[in-house]
Amino acid sequence: MLSIAEVAAHMKLQSPVMAATSLDERNEALVRIREALLNNRDKIFAANAADLDAAQKNGVAAPIVKRLKFDESKLEGVCEGIRDLVSLPDPVGRVQLRRELDQGLVLVRETCPIGVIGVIFEARPDALVQISTLCLKSGNCALLKGGSETMRTNRALFEVIHAAAIEAGLPEGCLHQVEAREEISELLACDESVDLLIPRGSNEFVRYIMDHTRIPVMGHADGICHVYVDAEADLQTAIDVVVDAKTQYVAVCNACETLLVAREAASTLVPALVAALQAAGVEVRGDEEVRALADCEPATDEDWDTEYLSLVISVKVVADVDEAIDHINRHGSHHTDAIVTQNAATAERFQQLVDSAGVYWNVSTRFADGFRYGFGAEVGISTSKLHARGPVGLDGLVTYKYKLSGNGHVVADYASGKKSFHFRDI
Amino acid sequence: MLSIAEVAAHMKLQSPVMAATSLDERNEALVRIREALLNNRDKIFAANAADLDAAQKNGVAAPIVKRLKFDESKLEGVCEGIRDLVSLPDPVGRVQLRRELDQGLVLVRETCPIGVIGVIFEARPDALVQISTLCLKSGNCALLKGGSETMRTNRALFEVIHAAAIEAGLPEGCLHQVEAREEISELLACDESVDLLIPRGSNEFVRYIMDHTRIPVMGHADGICHVYVDAEADLQTAIDVVVDAKTQYVAVCNACETLLVAREAASTLVPALVAALQAAGVEVRGDEEVRALADCEPATDEDWDTEYLSLVISVKVVADVDEAIDHINRHGSHHTDAIVTQNAATAERFQQLVDSAGVYWNVSTRFADGFRYGFGAEVGISTSKLHARGPVGLDGLVTYKYKLSGNGHVVADYASGKKSFHFRDI
Repeated sequence: MLSIAEVAAHMKLQSPVMAATSLDERNEALVRIREALLNNRDKIFAANAADLDAAQKNGVAAPIVKRLKFDESKLEGVCEGIRDLVSLPDPVGRVQLRRELDQGLVLVRETCPIGVIGVIFEARPDALVQISTLCLKSGNCALLKGGSETMRTNRALFEVIHAAAIEAGLPEGCLHQVEAREEISELLACDESVDLLIPRGSNEFVRYIMDHTRIPVMGHADGICHVYVDAEADLQTAIDVVVDAKTQYVAVCNACETLLVAREAASTLVPALVAALQAAGVEVRGDEEVRALADCEPATDEDWDTEYLSLVISVKVVADVDEAIDHINRHGSHHTDAIVTQNAATAERFQQLVDSAGVYWNVSTRFADGFRYGFGAEVGISTSKLHARGPVGLDGLVTYKYKLSGNGHVVADYASGKKSFHFRDI
Repeated sequence: MLSIAEVAAHMKLQSPVMAATSLDERNEALVRIREALLNNRDKIFAANAADLDAAQKNGVAAPIVKRLKFDESKLEGVCEGIRDLVSLPDPVGRVQLRRELDQGLVLVRETCPIGVIGVIFEARPDALVQISTLCLKSGNCALLKGGSETMRTNRALFEVIHAAAIEAGLPEGCLHQVEAREEISELLACDESVDLLIPRGSNEFVRYIMDHTRIPVMGHADGICHVYVDAEADLQTAIDVVVDAKTQYVAVCNACETLLVAREAASTLVPALVAALQAAGVEVRGDEEVRALADCEPATDEDWDTEYLSLVISVKVVADVDEAIDHINRHGSHHTDAIVTQNAATAERFQQLVDSAGVYWNVSTRFADGFRYGFGAEVGISTSKLHARGPVGLDGLVTYKYKLSGNGHVVADYASGKKSFHFRDI
């Protein structure tokens, strides 16, 4: 059996071949993958049943078991996702710049796949399908390591997907499944072969990956998202946005962890917002000003830097939008932050000065998601400012190269002044 | 005096203010910087004279002393560069995507500055001017550490530039000069405040930086560039391109280090190319097939992975374009590689399959440069595939943010099926 380093090195040399496949070939592979998934549903469901059995025997909690499940409705979901992906335009080969530098000397900047991508993701079988198909559509080769709780389902899905991709004519090294946990550290050492790592999972896990590899890492550790309710907010809008952002799904990075309220309207806003949150089952932790207006737990300094991922929220009164911006830029994780206000100028200031991937106006932070942005799906959400920011779909899986063509043009002629550039976009 | 960590933390909080400056304000600052440089020429030249004196006393070699020099012609050069930069369009606030997700729910992806950039660069005073003005034009704050051999010139230039920028209304924390070498390690630890590091200099130095910081690093370590001369090459074009790529300036990353020649035409091409290179003073190191056709030194396996940065070239005979591509993808540094051929299909295959930032056809590799691409100037050249690739100008100094606006839109309505997205680009 080949080591991960050998597999990755082989994949690296195959990646230009994968990059050179046509959109038709890649779409054909997606169509066949979808058919193969449907045709092999029984085998896949059987593998998943075995995983669920094992999880129950190991005493895995019920909400997590639910996430491990891959049933008819999950299958339908991923198949619909693949159909959407087929219909999306080719992210590869887009001309971003075409410039005549001088007579006969033409520069073209064209998008191309990143190359070899390693994705380490949680035990969620639908994630394996989404990630592998996003990588194939964007012309990348991928090393996939899914959570071990769905090992059997992952293997069944991977075999079906890989066979269908090869059958459609994609290079044999386009996908590889990493199965053993020990192989992750081998993967982290493949900085000569792997162009990008996308780790998904707990904060500690993502930080561990970032600290133990020289491969560029795309992803996010924290998700401390804020909602700031301005003095000129519409109360019902504020309640709707805050309750959705906090409670619609608590265990995710785009859920709201801290609510900031403008002092000028705090006496009206705080009691109403705290009551609405508590009615939704949320534990509220307020600063002194909040506690003077509503009955709740006290917040400590630590609360402003805490990602609860549960039905808890911290609430703070701030002077105005500028203090809110300052608080968010200091304590936030540059993920997604929202303002509720009827004043367009205040909203613009907030969206301009908050230094986050998503800056929202009168909208719940929970919208930060590749599907909801119309990207088809996402491989993850990036809080880095480099390359891709926010939900990462096909666009974030390509880079570009510069193609320069001429007829014997040499730099000496330009250095000596014999010729000069005229830079004309064509 | 503040520590680098304190300066960087302050700069980080000022960076959204800098990001919110208008194009007029940033251009006005550039205009004033240009005037101030011209008005303070005597002070700057005096500082440079002191640096040059010190260098000569320290026995610095003449070609390096030349690079340290900042005279009337260098001043003219940077002033012309600033004028070009003023005329370039605003890289900030460009709308990359505007999409209605549902009625009243609008997503906008807009470019914005990266934030705080640390640049560590060689002792070349003109680099300080170029880098600081590129950062300001793109709305970024910058920490600048220049080579210590031009310490006095750097200080004089920095004072003039910083004062003019502040006078034009840019935030006081937009630029900071790092002077002591010991402060570099402090800077590397500022991963909470510094968004991007751009190190320039020797391979060892860039590698050292990459290995000692959690801050994303943009740049390149090696520059092993190739020219492949195809069997269908025009001989004179091949000679022109190869000689320019090797000799026009040897101590730079985009100079050619290895020449590959197609076997089918080797008996004609090799003698002519080797003779032309030797006539230009180049030491040629060939493999056995090359040595059977022309008198030259023997190449060892190590030569294919060596960046000479001097008048030395390795030459190898390959079967065809595919072997050339394979050799380049294995031994190259993904920087810039060129093919010489009259066959458009062969050129296309090469430009498609070579996995480098620049893939050139009938053109010298020496064109890989921000000025020659029409970017005004460059902060560096990136061989990373993430974010920016190749010469990095204004475009590589911005990222984007997603602005989402609605009127109380909540995810619960979409999760429950009460509402659905329609994704319409507007």
